[in-house]
Amino acid sequence: MNPIKSLTFPVERLHEFTAQVLVACGVPPADAARAADILTQADLRGIDSHGVARLHAYVTQYKAGRMNPRPNITVARDRLSTATVDGDNGLGLVVGPKANEIAMEKAEKTGAAWVAVCNSHHFGIAGYYPLVALERDMIGWAMTNATNQVAPHGSRQRLLGTNPIAVAFPGLVEPPVVIDMATSVVSYGKIEIARRRQEPIPSGWALDSTGHITTDPTAMGPDYALLPLGSDKERGGHKGYCLGSMVDLFCGPLAGANWGPFAPPLLYPPEAHHGTVGKGIGHLFGAMKIDAFVDVDDFKRQVDHWVQVMRAAPPAPGYSGPLIPGDPERAAEKIRRESGVPLILPVVEDLRRVGQETNTPFDE
Amino acid sequence: MNPIKSLTFPVERLHEFTAQVLVACGVPPADAARAADILTQADLRGIDSHGVARLHAYVTQYKAGRMNPRPNITVARDRLSTATVDGDNGLGLVVGPKANEIAMEKAEKTGAAWVAVCNSHHFGIAGYYPLVALERDMIGWAMTNATNQVAPHGSRQRLLGTNPIAVAFPGLVEPPVVIDMATSVVSYGKIEIARRRQEPIPSGWALDSTGHITTDPTAMGPDYALLPLGSDKERGGHKGYCLGSMVDLFCGPLAGANWGPFAPPLLYPPEAHHGTVGKGIGHLFGAMKIDAFVDVDDFKRQVDHWVQVMRAAPPAPGYSGPLIPGDPERAAEKIRRESGVPLILPVVEDLRRVGQETNTPFDE
Repeated sequence: MNPIKSLTFPVERLHEFTAQVLVACGVPPADAARAADILTQADLRGIDSHGVARLHAYVTQYKAGRMNPRPNITVARDRLSTATVDGDNGLGLVVGPKANEIAMEKAEKTGAAWVAVCNSHHFGIAGYYPLVALERDMIGWAMTNATNQVAPHGSRQRLLGTNPIAVAFPGLVEPPVVIDMATSVVSYGKIEIARRRQEPIPSGWALDSTGHITTDPTAMGPDYALLPLGSDKERGGHKGYCLGSMVDLFCGPLAGANWGPFAPPLLYPPEAHHGTVGKGIGHLFGAMKIDAFVDVDDFKRQVDHWVQVMRAAPPAPGYSGPLIPGDPERAAEKIRRESGVPLILPVVEDLRRVGQETNTPFDE
Repeated sequence: MNPIKSLTFPVERLHEFTAQVLVACGVPPADAARAADILTQADLRGIDSHGVARLHAYVTQYKAGRMNPRPNITVARDRLSTATVDGDNGLGLVVGPKANEIAMEKAEKTGAAWVAVCNSHHFGIAGYYPLVALERDMIGWAMTNATNQVAPHGSRQRLLGTNPIAVAFPGLVEPPVVIDMATSVVSYGKIEIARRRQEPIPSGWALDSTGHITTDPTAMGPDYALLPLGSDKERGGHKGYCLGSMVDLFCGPLAGANWGPFAPPLLYPPEAHHGTVGKGIGHLFGAMKIDAFVDVDDFKRQVDHWVQVMRAAPPAPGYSGPLIPGDPERAAEKIRRESGVPLILPVVEDLRRVGQETNTPFDE
């Protein structure tokens, strides 16, 4: 493995810088602080592709006037247990927490709720939102669609985003079960890392521009495509495609947002993109109040038992045994909270540039 | 490929026989008819493992007094948008439609609802339930846990069921997008077919009794395990494990049903099983009223467009292009409605035996 050079920063410093930069872009301080919570939680939890590495893209969009720093977030349709929210072209990191809050408020009253969101942008790691719901003894859901990177099973054309799903279940003494997964085999971030390290990628992650499976991340060409979870016909690639489709249909047509190839990429002006079928990108947030189904402590005790049973399972050859969903992120968080967040040099450079552009010195 | 001998029956005959057999077991006629709808829909849609092939197991359970033909289905906990239903040890094919109905009634009033079910048994194909919701312009969800067949990613021990998820989205002129998928790479049914045909299975479907990946379906041994969707570490087996865990935690701890290795197998007496942590197996049904989010016709037109965009995608080498989720089942249904349902000889033999046991001649 070829290591990538990095510098390490205390998470508090990254949080402070992120919030300052967003405020400099016109985002109200409270929104900026919460957006910084989400971004730095990604860095803490080891999901580097979704953390401060994305800040430069947000700043570029704000500076170009293509994203609204002070969105007037409105409820376009409202029922007891549902709402459709218009994010007014705001950043998902600003719009998402408010829509998630509406879902939780409604679930508080009726037991469960769904809130669909259109006219939004990136909302950070999907796992953030169900973690907030856990604090209220709710099971939260979050999904989002995204720029087209993934080929439908059987095709070579990028038509779906990596469309993640996140859900979390609380334990009593055990940590929560936190599911947060792209519906592709891998996110583009993993391919990017292999490219930087000049290492091959496993067969089954991606197609090159000719539509063939490739293991060379440096030779994918402009018309590459990621593969849906399951990869190929024999291993259930149609199921990953089903999951990505499900997320897209909830976050696009149901929310009134763009879907599939129409989902706007973050960094390109909309006019460079091929048409529009809705507003911005879309999200779906769900909340289920646990005590609307079963006593909360009974539920948590069962989750504890479930976690203990899974942990006790004998390992398969070549593995060290099962993890609990959320374990790798918890392990990363423990280390990074103590020792800081490592950022690779290109990201550090990006942040310095962002600092100059917003008069917010990064590490001088 | 070694063909398996089969006989072909009109679906109406299979439906009539199934309903008669269930009535002979004590199931009320209306419940028996609906259970027959679900079972024969599986046969029609080509999901042979979930159709009349299972009837003998249900009859065995009824005859042994281990399943309640006339369950008193009760709502144990009730909120505006949620309920927990106790299936009173009834067959899932009887309990499921009633719980799904409750979810749809609640969604009619509040926009969306979830109903968790405990103390149930097999509920047939998960895809049946969202198809019912489509008739009311709702997006339906169905999940169930099941007998442990699948190893958590990184382990060799069967601890989770194949735990399917089904969701369906209606089109206006295009057929609906119908997702119905086990969260394992394949269901055991596919391995059973390979075993009968004496053909190898692809690498990545299953572990043998030693915990190693096997391609020989005749030599898996008693401690085999199916693998979660994604198969291995490189291809995202942890994601399939996350999905199977999600379904299990919803259908077990949230519903008050058994989970993981405690989910009772259909055919063995409970006392042969290792303990219990809840009641029977569990399901989760969801319903989302489309016009609680967006105008129904706008939604359906977007789904039509989505379907057309996916269909138009260029094929990957070796593929004929993307299908729409639900296409294979629709194709099977078209053929089988006209030409009849082929049943392999062991299933025909089972049905004859069932007919004798219940004084309901099958094909004399």
